[in-house]
Amino acid sequence: MKNTTLCYIEKDGCYLMMHRTKKDRDVNHDKWVGVGGKFEEGETDEDCLLREVREETGLRLTSFKKRGIVTFLSDEWEGEYMHLYTADGFEGEIFSSNDCAEGELCWIPKRDVYRLPVWQGDLLFFKELEENEDFFTMLLRYEGDRLVGYEKNGVALDVKSQLFQTGKQLDI
Amino acid sequence: MKNTTLCYIEKDGCYLMMHRTKKDRDVNHDKWVGVGGKFEEGETDEDCLLREVREETGLRLTSFKKRGIVTFLSDEWEGEYMHLYTADGFEGEIFSSNDCAEGELCWIPKRDVYRLPVWQGDLLFFKELEENEDFFTMLLRYEGDRLVGYEKNGVALDVKSQLFQTGKQLDI
Repeated sequence: MKNTTLCYIEKDGCYLMMHRTKKDRDVNHDKWVGVGGKFEEGETDEDCLLREVREETGLRLTSFKKRGIVTFLSDEWEGEYMHLYTADGFEGEIFSSNDCAEGELCWIPKRDVYRLPVWQGDLLFFKELEENEDFFTMLLRYEGDRLVGYEKNGVALDVKSQLFQTGKQLDI
Repeated sequence: MKNTTLCYIEKDGCYLMMHRTKKDRDVNHDKWVGVGGKFEEGETDEDCLLREVREETGLRLTSFKKRGIVTFLSDEWEGEYMHLYTADGFEGEIFSSNDCAEGELCWIPKRDVYRLPVWQGDLLFFKELEENEDFFTMLLRYEGDRLVGYEKNGVALDVKSQLFQTGKQLDI
């Protein structure tokens, strides 16, 4: 199981999101994700967070918080321990992009995040990040693109009804 | 009736979109729109296009095409003749943004544009831009936020069924 970080940088009610055509967990779709990546040799979760944010956005985080650990299991890709952060302070200038072919950065209003193509499980931790300040653990089990198993803080929950709940975030 | 331009800059299957909290036609929602604005005194539609794109994005268009004229009528805001362009060539560096409070630029894959909060009428010309190369005229009549009248090339069409058609763009 590899270790990764994922960070949602927040400002003015938006998250800084990337859409990318290539991503290890993204076999088929051009999904929208936060900023992050794999631990390098000898890195702590915080080392990895700060490096990945700097490499992918050009920003230096000045205020961030570890929000949870998400364990991904899949029938198709390697399992993953994802260390989930939010950040509300940064320095520097975000990379600008003349190109949308590779990963491209964009501030997305939080309510709009739920409309875009994201992993089903991501909807679940978006909701958790918005509604709960406490540190949490999640287990997300995928078959291909489909979320088939969900535990929060060690408790198994029904995937369908939990995903339905996130639909209420949509103002449609 | 004021004259305006609107431009959808295309690259790698994306449109360059802005989401903004303030826009004359946008009384209530944080909608996503293309780049453009009002004619200044003595400007042609092309003058206005090139100036607005430069002012809002930092880019100089090198290849663009006038696609249609959209007439907006509303019970709440001033009527508008919108000169609609697409562009597939540009020079310069797009403004980067550390802020999502005001208008912010973002490459959005075309299929995702239909998911985001846009004016109902915009869905209709997105579809037209994708499916038809010919120059077109459209009349869009709004009551508040709601599209209540639609004509294409002088022919009145049913709003509900035409909007339903655009839903087919969604892969959901």
